[in-house]
Amino acid sequence: MNFEFIILGSSSGRPTADLYQSAYVLNIHNNYILLDCGEGAQMQLFKYGIPIMKINHILITHLHADHFIGLIGLLNTYNLLKRDKPIHIYAPKGLEEIIQVQFKHAGKVASYPIYFHELNMNQNTKVIETPTLEVYSFPVNHRIECNGFLFREKAHLRNINPELVSELKHLPNEVYQILKRSKDYEFENRIYEYEKYTLPPPKSRTFAFVTDTLKDNLYIKHIQGVDMLFHEATFTDEHEELTTETFHSTARQAAEIGQEAQVKKLIIGHFSTRYKDFETHLKEAREIFPNTFLAEQGKRFEIQTAQV
Amino acid sequence: MNFEFIILGSSSGRPTADLYQSAYVLNIHNNYILLDCGEGAQMQLFKYGIPIMKINHILITHLHADHFIGLIGLLNTYNLLKRDKPIHIYAPKGLEEIIQVQFKHAGKVASYPIYFHELNMNQNTKVIETPTLEVYSFPVNHRIECNGFLFREKAHLRNINPELVSELKHLPNEVYQILKRSKDYEFENRIYEYEKYTLPPPKSRTFAFVTDTLKDNLYIKHIQGVDMLFHEATFTDEHEELTTETFHSTARQAAEIGQEAQVKKLIIGHFSTRYKDFETHLKEAREIFPNTFLAEQGKRFEIQTAQV
Repeated sequence: MNFEFIILGSSSGRPTADLYQSAYVLNIHNNYILLDCGEGAQMQLFKYGIPIMKINHILITHLHADHFIGLIGLLNTYNLLKRDKPIHIYAPKGLEEIIQVQFKHAGKVASYPIYFHELNMNQNTKVIETPTLEVYSFPVNHRIECNGFLFREKAHLRNINPELVSELKHLPNEVYQILKRSKDYEFENRIYEYEKYTLPPPKSRTFAFVTDTLKDNLYIKHIQGVDMLFHEATFTDEHEELTTETFHSTARQAAEIGQEAQVKKLIIGHFSTRYKDFETHLKEAREIFPNTFLAEQGKRFEIQTAQV
Repeated sequence: MNFEFIILGSSSGRPTADLYQSAYVLNIHNNYILLDCGEGAQMQLFKYGIPIMKINHILITHLHADHFIGLIGLLNTYNLLKRDKPIHIYAPKGLEEIIQVQFKHAGKVASYPIYFHELNMNQNTKVIETPTLEVYSFPVNHRIECNGFLFREKAHLRNINPELVSELKHLPNEVYQILKRSKDYEFENRIYEYEKYTLPPPKSRTFAFVTDTLKDNLYIKHIQGVDMLFHEATFTDEHEELTTETFHSTARQAAEIGQEAQVKKLIIGHFSTRYKDFETHLKEAREIFPNTFLAEQGKRFEIQTAQV
């Protein structure tokens, strides 16, 4: 059961010849979710072999150009590839108008349904629920309305204890599903206790995605204790004074957020193109939060399953 | 005096991991003109070291996504770089709405004036005139309205014959400009004939750009005899039947146009991503028009100055 975060691009504002703007993929149980879609995101999807037809959900944090302008290209490519499966786009109000005006002037109609879901930019809201996953959005503190996202696996079923499975073999098949769901099973006046016959399930995994924000207590409660946090880290300490002007964070501030929210692992990205490399970002963040890693293009970060 | 055509991207429809969509630069006398602006065009501008602040004119052939969706990213980057010089965009009706709706939702105002010039999509029209250059647009035959462009250097001045320049030294300085402009000069009852004292100027150079069209006689008169023609060549002979469905051309048809219009040199591009390489395109075109070259990313094609 995968739970993987993949970096397509993590450049802030403008791209360079090699560094792409914000675009990330979550692969959760082989369902692919695209997080932001900067210019050229589709080229990075091709480059890193992401099965683009398995992307059914696209989440856009906010409507600054570097976070969504690759979307029209991807939607157009789906048309060329004759996609018929619907796609769901979760974004601030306005994105639908931006996309539709481009289809209109191209004289095109998408070959597949596009569902636009307008995000609530003011409070924590559940935006997606599947049989195995819940996704929440919550406001962060940027120049324009901007959301972060929390991804939470639903509780897994308990596992039948393989050492005792032989004692269940004479029972009707339904016994397994009932015990796995933490219910005792009764048969011919005997009780089979789920706590005896099953083992605890793996822990539900959590991932939070926070980009384009001032460091702020506002959103800490929504990301508390997550297994992995992506947090923007546009600047190093040297340019800390730019954070209040641009509503961005330093690597150190991202690490402080990671520490305060007691997350297990921190990925930093959304780096300003003024830096030649991001080693200073990494060093400054690790002084506060040692388990920090850089969002380098093509990198994949897996959250392993763990027993409770 | 440069006259150079530079390939940023020449992929048809969608990009691949490495091949960018339509985007080309003309460098005429160190004035840079961007022709189409597919996704990621700005990254290619950075990669090939084009001085992006020297681009003052952007021409968009038509409003299919692969020909303009990199524009909003470039305009946004100009903002980040605090451009103040105006930029002029020549495009079909609709592009202004597409761009303005994106600025609106981003809560941004450009730091520089953007002038949108709506192209006449029905007839040959002069769209740009500078002291040294004229640019014309003319309709081609695509699924939606689409224009080609012709670039023509204005007549150069004649050159003073260096072997006779000593005979002019005692005259007022104005003599040089008058003779260069093909006028005789009179001084103290003597006539200095421009034909004697000057040499013919270099020939005015011409370049035509034709993409996204069925092969059609419609536009041949506008590109007659140009020094260099870029013509789309989406398909090889193998897929010729797709041309009428998609309103595109084969490499052979591009070569036939080059031959019929008696151009001097042909560049073919806008290749479908179904092909692994474009050697078959080149072979099929050269059977008709030997002086054909492939529009490969990063390639630069110079038109040399030549005496009349």
